[in-house]
Amino acid sequence: MRILEDGGVTSARGFRAAAVKAGIKPGTDRLDLALVASDRPASAAAVFTTNRVQAAPILVDREHLRRGSARAVVLNSGNANACTGERGVADARRTCALVAQALGVAAEEVLVCSTGVIGVPMPMSALEAAVPAVVAALAENGGALAAQAIMTTDTVPKSLAVEVELDGRTVRLGGMAKGAGMIAPHMATMLSVVTTDAALSSDLLGRLLARAAGRSFNCVTVDGDMSTNDTLLVLANGAAGGPAIEPDTDACERFYAGLEEVCRRLARMIARDGEGATKLIEIQVRGGRDEAEARQAGLAVANSNLVKTAVFGNDPNWGRILCAVGYSGVEIDPARVEVCLCGVRIYDHGSGQPFDQQALSQAMRTDEVPIAIDLQRGEAVAEIFTCDFSYDYVRINAEYTT
Amino acid sequence: MRILEDGGVTSARGFRAAAVKAGIKPGTDRLDLALVASDRPASAAAVFTTNRVQAAPILVDREHLRRGSARAVVLNSGNANACTGERGVADARRTCALVAQALGVAAEEVLVCSTGVIGVPMPMSALEAAVPAVVAALAENGGALAAQAIMTTDTVPKSLAVEVELDGRTVRLGGMAKGAGMIAPHMATMLSVVTTDAALSSDLLGRLLARAAGRSFNCVTVDGDMSTNDTLLVLANGAAGGPAIEPDTDACERFYAGLEEVCRRLARMIARDGEGATKLIEIQVRGGRDEAEARQAGLAVANSNLVKTAVFGNDPNWGRILCAVGYSGVEIDPARVEVCLCGVRIYDHGSGQPFDQQALSQAMRTDEVPIAIDLQRGEAVAEIFTCDFSYDYVRINAEYTT
Repeated sequence: MRILEDGGVTSARGFRAAAVKAGIKPGTDRLDLALVASDRPASAAAVFTTNRVQAAPILVDREHLRRGSARAVVLNSGNANACTGERGVADARRTCALVAQALGVAAEEVLVCSTGVIGVPMPMSALEAAVPAVVAALAENGGALAAQAIMTTDTVPKSLAVEVELDGRTVRLGGMAKGAGMIAPHMATMLSVVTTDAALSSDLLGRLLARAAGRSFNCVTVDGDMSTNDTLLVLANGAAGGPAIEPDTDACERFYAGLEEVCRRLARMIARDGEGATKLIEIQVRGGRDEAEARQAGLAVANSNLVKTAVFGNDPNWGRILCAVGYSGVEIDPARVEVCLCGVRIYDHGSGQPFDQQALSQAMRTDEVPIAIDLQRGEAVAEIFTCDFSYDYVRINAEYTT
Repeated sequence: MRILEDGGVTSARGFRAAAVKAGIKPGTDRLDLALVASDRPASAAAVFTTNRVQAAPILVDREHLRRGSARAVVLNSGNANACTGERGVADARRTCALVAQALGVAAEEVLVCSTGVIGVPMPMSALEAAVPAVVAALAENGGALAAQAIMTTDTVPKSLAVEVELDGRTVRLGGMAKGAGMIAPHMATMLSVVTTDAALSSDLLGRLLARAAGRSFNCVTVDGDMSTNDTLLVLANGAAGGPAIEPDTDACERFYAGLEEVCRRLARMIARDGEGATKLIEIQVRGGRDEAEARQAGLAVANSNLVKTAVFGNDPNWGRILCAVGYSGVEIDPARVEVCLCGVRIYDHGSGQPFDQQALSQAMRTDEVPIAIDLQRGEAVAEIFTCDFSYDYVRINAEYTT
């Protein structure tokens, strides 16, 4: 597998993308409408938020995905089209129809994603006026602009691609994501679109995507809040040529490895760019009875405001880490759990171990803080990504709509 | 029922209390050792944290409570005696023994509570040296000092008492609590001691306490972190005279009402004094199928960092409230849920309602912000207390040990 750091949603063959300023974000001069399109029908699959409150685009996408294929994804920032009632659903449908008309495809072949403020009707006249321009701007190198257009409180665009060898031919998988706040599993918030020029059925694509999401976006948390709009879409258009990938083959495993890699790297970028984050926190959990409990223990630590503020303050306060493992719901034995922070074993055998407080605090002054936890209950592992919790998280979220 | 705002753990007859500076909090000149004692054996019951990691004092208290009666509670701040292994348990036992010896009672009649930094051995020589002084200082008006001595990052001491008429005689219930950070249900963090001069069996006392905790301390959250030390103790010494309270009597219900009132008011004080709090948030949930789901929905909102930062910023962002209800795990229908903020109906029938953004933001500039949520699934209600989330929460918790 080869990582293409500069890659994105247009790295895979047969995909074009574009972004324009539609004026959906009032009072700013930022890109806010993106389009990703395949030059041929693509197998399509998705994972959505499990929040009971689901934004209008998700309701429409679920319908459109029943056919198992799609041609394009239209995404906007600045307005989430969530909690907007029947009008919101009509607006999402109309957005798909407008794009479909301009592309000359069926409305059901277009998927839609929105992110931004909740509860405000979509400014449809602005969006409608911008559709011809974004379609006209579609380009084979448009992935980078599209990744910019979906940002909200993100500070950097997030995209990359990988190349995977399958039976002598090369396929590419590329993706973009936006995240920042309201990030918690099932799903991590965010919008993410992954494209690939491999060929496979939408059914297989969906199963592989669910597995990859469990090890990537569902292992990221910023603030424990789960959004109404979380969406991960994947389109596979087969433009690389060659036979379709079949389940349980070597090619399928290689393709899956590429898909997981793209998702994991995007998820990690989201955690690193969490609202107000100054550091990425990587939590390695091992010794779980199964992957689910390893993830559960890691997420409790990752969601602990006390752990996250301690990391922000370079405070080697292992008590907070252990405490979070203790209330995670996993039936740990506190006398067997081990905790390492920045590679230093700070807790085992039921009590804190001697360590150099100054030196460890100094070691925490870095932009990636590793926490390793051994539950000593089995062989399963999980890796969770989160960020520290700073003054800026409060500033950003106290001032979002007003 | 009459509220005694100046009351506390020594309002009930037969109880004395005291506090001294033992030097357990290094480098400060603050009270850090408190003692509450009954002049006769008292029925005793407790509710403890459900964290798998439990501090040494809890392990010792569980043993001592097997006899169902106690004479005294010794409490220290500055050191939690948590994650301190076998040495911690020996230290907690020795603390009880030292106090018991000075009081002339059995070691098993003394309960112990600790709060403060996790993972540091208790400075036993300082504690040991201070025991004679705290015993000598026991006084019938010592409740206020005891409430001060258990503070950590609390900014105000928390205590009150109530008087309840039972069959023509008056009994008193008084309590003190400390809270501030690492507060989340089962239990809300904290130490709390409630005393009463009513007479009742430890068995009945325990059942009433569990019920009261479910509607008070377990309805409070500051940061979603559940501590290793959370303890709610109650002692009933019968000094008011009269027959013992029997279950399922009018007297029992009146006594319970007093106990719930003391617990709820202490819990509310804890939320108001949450770390960095500028406001109390009162979340009224109605329309639950049962009390448990009403509480679950309310706690999801109360634990949402996005809701708490929005309240801090006077931002009427109802989308975040609805979103938290949506991921609470309660199977709500988003088209039926209603949300009111500061008395203004801002969401119902599946979409946001028009409201004056400026006026509502202005209404939020107060020290008690009410949020009312109707789940429209049944008749059950719950009331949850939390606080807003400010820059100071981050400051306090980034700098706690270093």
